Order: sequence, then C-alpha cells, then structure tokens
Amino acid sequence: MRSYILINGLSEQSLPVTDRGLAYGHGLFETVAVNLSVPIAWQDHLERLTEGAKRLAIPLPVNIQQLLEQDLIALLGLQQNVPQRQVLKITITRGCGGRGYAVDEAVPINRIVQLNPFPEYPDQPSQKGVAVTQCQTRLALSPQLAGMKHLNRLEQVLARAEWNDARIREGVVLDGEGFLVEGTMSNLFWSQGGNLYTPRLDRCGVKGIVRQKIISIAEQNGIVVHEGLYTPDSLADADEVFVCNSIIAIWPVTRLNCDLRQYPQWGVGPITRMLQSRLSAEGIY
Amino acid sequence: MRSYILINGLSEQSLPVTDRGLAYGHGLFETVAVNLSVPIAWQDHLERLTEGAKRLAIPLPVNIQQLLEQDLIALLGLQQNVPQRQVLKITITRGCGGRGYAVDEAVPINRIVQLNPFPEYPDQPSQKGVAVTQCQTRLALSPQLAGMKHLNRLEQVLARAEWNDARIREGVVLDGEGFLVEGTMSNLFWSQGGNLYTPRLDRCGVKGIVRQKIISIAEQNGIVVHEGLYTPDSLADADEVFVCNSIIAIWPVTRLNCDLRQYPQWGVGPITRMLQSRLSAEGIY
Repeated sequence: MRSYILINGLSEQSLPVTDRGLAYGHGLFETVAVNLSVPIAWQDHLERLTEGAKRLAIPLPVNIQQLLEQDLIALLGLQQNVPQRQVLKITITRGCGGRGYAVDEAVPINRIVQLNPFPEYPDQPSQKGVAVTQCQTRLALSPQLAGMKHLNRLEQVLARAEWNDARIREGVVLDGEGFLVEGTMSNLFWSQGGNLYTPRLDRCGVKGIVRQKIISIAEQNGIVVHEGLYTPDSLADADEVFVCNSIIAIWPVTRLNCDLRQYPQWGVGPITRMLQSRLSAEGIY
Repeated sequence: MRSYILINGLSEQSLPVTDRGLAYGHGLFETVAVNLSVPIAWQDHLERLTEGAKRLAIPLPVNIQQLLEQDLIALLGLQQNVPQRQVLKITITRGCGGRGYAVDEAVPINRIVQLNPFPEYPDQPSQKGVAVTQCQTRLALSPQLAGMKHLNRLEQVLARAEWNDARIREGVVLDGEGFLVEGTMSNLFWSQGGNLYTPRLDRCGVKGIVRQKIISIAEQNGIVVHEGLYTPDSLADADEVFVCNSIIAIWPVTRLNCDLRQYPQWGVGPITRMLQSRLSAEGIY
C-alpha cells in the first residue's frame, strides 16, 4: 500500500530543504485515525494543532479546518478502494526561510497532509496486552514546549532505539528528575483501588487526544483521575496499566522490564476494558 | 544571490516529506565559512559531525569527508563568479522512514549541502561591538543531546522570536536552572582579571567550533579558561564580553539588556582583540 501526500493542497512528494520544519523542527504534527473516511476526534486534533501553533508563532490560516478537510477529501478521492481505516498525518511547518532562527513574517506556512495505511497488529495487543520496557533516555524539563506535538522528537527517537525485541511494544520514559512521563509514542495510565493515575504533562511530554478522552470518560463514570508526579515505583502497586494513543487506542500493559517467559505482572482489568469499550464506541479502537 | 543545493550529490531543491529530519529532527547540521573556496576549520566541523552522528545512530558513509568535499567542489563549479566568502551548510538526516520512531537500518542517510551568500554586516559589529538581550526562553537540561548541533532547535527559534529590534544582535539564553549557556546562534565568553570564562556545555547548548578554537588560542597565550556553571550576575564584573560562531567569528558585546542610548557597559578590550586577530589569521573573521 502506498502513501498519498498533498503539500499545500498540491500533489507533491517533497518539500524545499529550506523548510523550517527540517532546519529547526519549527512545526507541529497530528496523527489522526480515519474510519470509513471520517477523521476521528477531529475537533480535538484541530484544537491541539491550533493551540500549538499559537505557542510556536505559526500563523494558521483562518480556514485551516476547511483546508485540511479538503485535503483529506482529495486524498480519499485518489484511492480506488478506500480502506476502512487509515492514518491521516498532518504536518504544519513555519514555511521556508533563509539561514538563521528569526522568522520572516511574510513567508507562508507549509501544510503537509499524508494518508497512510493503518498499522496492523495481528497479535491483538489490545486484547492480550503488551510488554513494555523502561527507557534510559530521559525527557528534558521544558514547560515552554510541554504538551505540544512538535517536530523536535529526538528524545523519542533515542528512547525508541533502546530496544529491538519486536515483542516489546513500547518504552516508558521518565523526565530528567526521574518521574514517569509517558511512552515513546503513547500516554501512560494505571489504576489502583478504583482510581486512575496518569503523569502530569506540564513539564514535558505530549498531551494525547486519547489521554484527554480517557480522563473525560473515567470522570463521567465516577472514576477519580489523578494527574501528578509519580516515580516508576508507583506502578508496582497498580492493579491495571495501559498505554494509549489515537492509532492504538488502548494497549493494556502486562509486563514492564520483565522476562517474557515469566507470568505477567498485570492482567487486563475491568477499568481498561470499560475504557476500551467506550473509546471503541467513538471510533477509537 | 541564490543558494546552490545538492542532495545526495544531485542537483535537487527538495527532500521527500518522509525524511526523518523533517519528521523528528533526526539529523545534524554544520555551518561552515568558506573562504576563497576553502572550508574553514574543516576537520573540526567533520569531527563534530562524526561525533554527533555516532550519538544519534546516524551511520555516516566511511567516505563522508570525500563526499562532502566533492559536493562543495561541484557547487563551486556551478558559480560563474565565486564570491570570496560563502556559507556552506551541511545537513545530514537519518533518511526517509515510515510512520514511527524506530529506524529502518537499511535506509540510507540523506546528505544536503547548500552554498549560501555570506551575511554582510555593514555596521561592523566585529569592530564596534553589539547589544544583546537576555532571553526568557530557557534551554532544557538534556545531557544526552548537549553539545550537538542537531536539528531540534525549537528553543533557539523561540528565544530568537523574543526580540525584533534590529539593533539587538543576539540573545543570551539560560538553562532551566538559571545558569548562563550561550547565545541563540553563538557561544558566550567573558574575561575578568585576565582569565576567560565560558559556560559548560555538557547539560545543554552547542559546542561551537570557534568556541573550542578560542579556548585553545587562549591557553596557548597563557590565559586561564574556566568552563563552569555561572549565573547572569557573573557578567556584572566582567571586563570584556563577546559571542562567537563560525560565521561572525567574534562579536564583542558592549551592552546587555541595556538602553541603547546609554553608555556601553563594556568596551572592546585587549583579550577580545587578540583573539579576533588570531582567529582572523586562521581565516575566521
């Protein structure tokens, strides 16, 4: 299966090397599940993109939503058979610039929209759970960049490079002070005594769309959600652990830094199942 | 004046949007002064590039030096009249990849080489000195990324966006704990009592080629150089202050956060002049 790409609405595969996304990572991205041609949690993705753009001084056109929807429709129109599920990747950069960090206000942004195959997970990680590792790579404390899905992702690249055992599906990363933050490509939750816990993301990390949905669903169901600074020890007493993002939805975590022949540390429990079910009803599965 | 660009040795202007430099900032760059067709401090730039590539798991070809020199010769060959001074920008990325942080080892790197006009500074900042500001943006502590000239430069972008008074030529940035680090595009030095001081760069910041040359020259001339953690207060008692990089060489700093109508805080002193003179003899001016 191939990828379908539009750059600023035109069928292009490549971007000038002067783009500030390449030069400095001056840009943002969104990874959106598309289900039966419908982008899932679309308003949430647009809101995060808009907020990030404000923080990075990237002037989005007022009709950005319309432009992105036109892009998606155009890309779907190029497909002979539209797959049931696809991944929409949106990248917005501060456009092309000369040498130097200062922005030329007159230069327009670049808008890159790709439609990619939905990843297949034949081993059913959503049902059976996954093994994860704890990475050595630390996330630097950077309140000014925290929460955004920006293009400076070297920490994630380094963390992901720490393991190559295909049976390990995610790595948990800590911040520079040793507190839990998230997975390399996901957010992290655990439950204990009927409450749900997830790390604060105002110092580093990416505020996931599904993370926010999970918090909402939990609270609607009377589950207290704590966002805080937690050390990895906190997981020792957890009843259930899971990671989440827009594409995988929820993967229960059954093992952390654990011999894969050993009995799992955690099962797949009722809170995880309830959240999966509720997300699934919103097209996130 | 236009830019001349080669991508992997071919005359191209653009890079596939799947490049990991764009997607994650998974790459490095070098900015090299070219003087009469000769790249200045060439071995130093190659060494930093090679060291950074190891740290970011970017497999450079064994003949990378030869490839880059061939690129430079080819770019110079495209020019009708070769300017006396130009800027060579080298960008190496981990190549093109699919969605996800994991690297496909089989994918080759991308090598982007640009020859740009040398910036002109008609107001003679090297002679007269410059005014600088202290930025609010902080550099996150990240020993794993410290020192490298990698493509994750959002902090520099945000710091540079803090001022738009063209008379202010650089911004000094602090780390997350409030210690001096560097300028947005330069390294920072000051002298006091005949000694030279510059911030440590093992927690964040870019280890500049000219910074290292200055340390060597100073030590050869019997000047003690201290690398440490210093607060901005340290500058209050400085005799001379300057910033440096491969293109500007040394700009004396005469004012920091100072009303531009006021008398300068610092003059341009003998250590600065000696270092400028010595660098100039090596083609760095």
